Amino acid sequence: MKTAFARRVDDLKASEIRELLKITEKPDIISFAGGLPAPELFPVEKLMEISRKVLEEEGMKALQYSATEGYLPLRSKIARRMNVQFNSNISMDEIIITNGSQQGLDFSGKIFLDEGDTVLCESPTYLGAINAFRPYRPRFVEVPTDEHGMLIEELESILLKNRDIKLIYVVPDFQNPTGRTWSLERRKHFIDLITRHEIHVLEDNPYGELRFEGEMLPSLKSLDKEGLVIYLGTFSKIFCPGMRIGWIAADKPIIEKYVLLKQGADLHTSSISQMEISKYLDTNDIDSDIKRLITVYRDRRDTMVDSMRDFFPENVTFNRPQGGLFLWAQLPENINARHVLAEALDCNVAFVPGGSFFPNGGRENTMRLNYSNMPCEKIVEGISRLGGVLSGFM
Amino acid sequence: MKTAFARRVDDLKASEIRELLKITEKPDIISFAGGLPAPELFPVEKLMEISRKVLEEEGMKALQYSATEGYLPLRSKIARRMNVQFNSNISMDEIIITNGSQQGLDFSGKIFLDEGDTVLCESPTYLGAINAFRPYRPRFVEVPTDEHGMLIEELESILLKNRDIKLIYVVPDFQNPTGRTWSLERRKHFIDLITRHEIHVLEDNPYGELRFEGEMLPSLKSLDKEGLVIYLGTFSKIFCPGMRIGWIAADKPIIEKYVLLKQGADLHTSSISQMEISKYLDTNDIDSDIKRLITVYRDRRDTMVDSMRDFFPENVTFNRPQGGLFLWAQLPENINARHVLAEALDCNVAFVPGGSFFPNGGRENTMRLNYSNMPCEKIVEGISRLGGVLSGFM
Repeated sequence: MKTAFARRVDDLKASEIRELLKITEKPDIISFAGGLPAPELFPVEKLMEISRKVLEEEGMKALQYSATEGYLPLRSKIARRMNVQFNSNISMDEIIITNGSQQGLDFSGKIFLDEGDTVLCESPTYLGAINAFRPYRPRFVEVPTDEHGMLIEELESILLKNRDIKLIYVVPDFQNPTGRTWSLERRKHFIDLITRHEIHVLEDNPYGELRFEGEMLPSLKSLDKEGLVIYLGTFSKIFCPGMRIGWIAADKPIIEKYVLLKQGADLHTSSISQMEISKYLDTNDIDSDIKRLITVYRDRRDTMVDSMRDFFPENVTFNRPQGGLFLWAQLPENINARHVLAEALDCNVAFVPGGSFFPNGGRENTMRLNYSNMPCEKIVEGISRLGGVLSGFM
Repeated sequence: MKTAFARRVDDLKASEIRELLKITEKPDIISFAGGLPAPELFPVEKLMEISRKVLEEEGMKALQYSATEGYLPLRSKIARRMNVQFNSNISMDEIIITNGSQQGLDFSGKIFLDEGDTVLCESPTYLGAINAFRPYRPRFVEVPTDEHGMLIEELESILLKNRDIKLIYVVPDFQNPTGRTWSLERRKHFIDLITRHEIHVLEDNPYGELRFEGEMLPSLKSLDKEGLVIYLGTFSKIFCPGMRIGWIAADKPIIEKYVLLKQGADLHTSSISQMEISKYLDTNDIDSDIKRLITVYRDRRDTMVDSMRDFFPENVTFNRPQGGLFLWAQLPENINARHVLAEALDCNVAFVPGGSFFPNGGRENTMRLNYSNMPCEKIVEGISRLGGVLSGFM
């Protein structure tokens, strides 16, 4: 008997990256494939202490059902922190806690997208967002980008041509997969444009706090005066991903809809994990902990970029992101990065072919490289091997 | 500007119970409204020890991203435990870990229900399932029930009349809201019928292990030879709900679809919480811990039933469930339980009006009473007050 699944199941595809990650779990592989933070920097000791305290002081509450909106002191601390960072005026009523920001992506698809609606995204864009939106069966339209973000003229022409656009999904800070950051000017023009067209924007910002140099730029959310921007934040890259704690910040009437959805979807996010992160924020200086991450990741980025200069053929171009976890490389047009990957894996090196990040396909001559998860000596060794593989393709 | 949400957002309703729970958070209220386990029985001390061990032994792994399917040792232990309980042959490949079984409900709607499809459920049924399915815009058809479960003849006639039935949702053990349990005979006839009609069944079993007396009955899943039954389990009622750890057990091709959905929905369930429960199962005898819960809950059920006999007017009927967290009372037809609730709240007593559990409305003369969350002396006091309120309505 054939199971009669809903139509949306036909569209489901395994994330190429998560499938690839399974291969790269072999201990001898040098992987630039995942988007994993460095586990040796996780606050394991601190969490032992925090976890003990939370259970000792409020164990019954930490293990009981709790509010769908999230743990109130945590929502309040998140709002306060965003307000300091972005000079904004977000209240805790405008925050809902989610299971990582991936759940924020799923809920955003669920709340905005009817079948056939159009969602705009950067080209390339984060694959996990595509996979979150796909079950709601939208049409994806990619907006061309350059090193400074979405091309505003291109966006405008798309907005004028398409009347059924429900949402624009963007990652303006150290984007996954490219590592690119939108310039201030681009942000301002973008907000002008979406305000004129009254289009909702989903601003996904998992990497923004991992800035190695230069000044932090205002979030789109903080530039938006009309309540059009919905902001996704997460503790995955600044604390740890295993606990799955993220948040959505948006105007209250929108947050209320997310709360209703979450009630049906999983009641609430882990009470104990929320209380632990809240306690961590009380008893530690997260900003100084983040500085420690930045020092290590900056060093790894430098090592990767330097090694690429040393070992990659000259006609491979790549960027030097100012923060985040990824950089982006472009091969000559006739070289398919999937073929490169096949040979790289034979040499125990992995990366993600960039083609996966274009929702409608194309640009197979690109590569995403993660530098956060490998120590410098492995980065040098891996890039040297990859350079050898690439030279064979030239 | 009016936000252009997806059509499914129009159908979202706040769960009456969760809204009611907010009112009942006042410390002086005696609440029979929630479905909360007794927090004083949570394994707080044990968890302090377990949490320390998990972080000490495998901290980096516990805080890192992990597999969408769930933590392998936990999946394996769940399969083994189900096989012992139900004399079945489930493998760990047939298990995916979810954020509580509520997430299993959401995913089941997402995987099976296209807009306009029909989903059958018991009348009355668990409100949270209705809220999980509603965003997929199905039609709900209620199947009449009695003290022994769904009425098979009624189900058969509905199956013959409706050709677009995609799913039957049932809670055969100590159902929420009624506390009723399906008889063995009813289970067997049900499986015969759905096998003939080749209809998928979602068997939700959060309470089955909390049996106070009588013999455990086979799950529908264990009676099903065709892979039609999808089983939802959870640690919420036998360990604690705050960590949000549940599971889905189904044939492998179906589990694979759930894995794809979960990948897009939230990547994976908390690594550390899964490892903690796995460690708990290794280092503790969960069955003897569950016996402790049963002793307390049995006592509370007895107290509630005895108090109802003492204090309720004679024309209020109610059952005496063999397990679980709830019992069900019926008022004379002309009395609306919502009006009773309004007056009960004035006396600082709360329950859930039964009308909420009928997806298409009706039966406003019913009440769901939870006995797990209040100590015996408060149960006596609360039922006595409620008896006074009810007498006023007679």
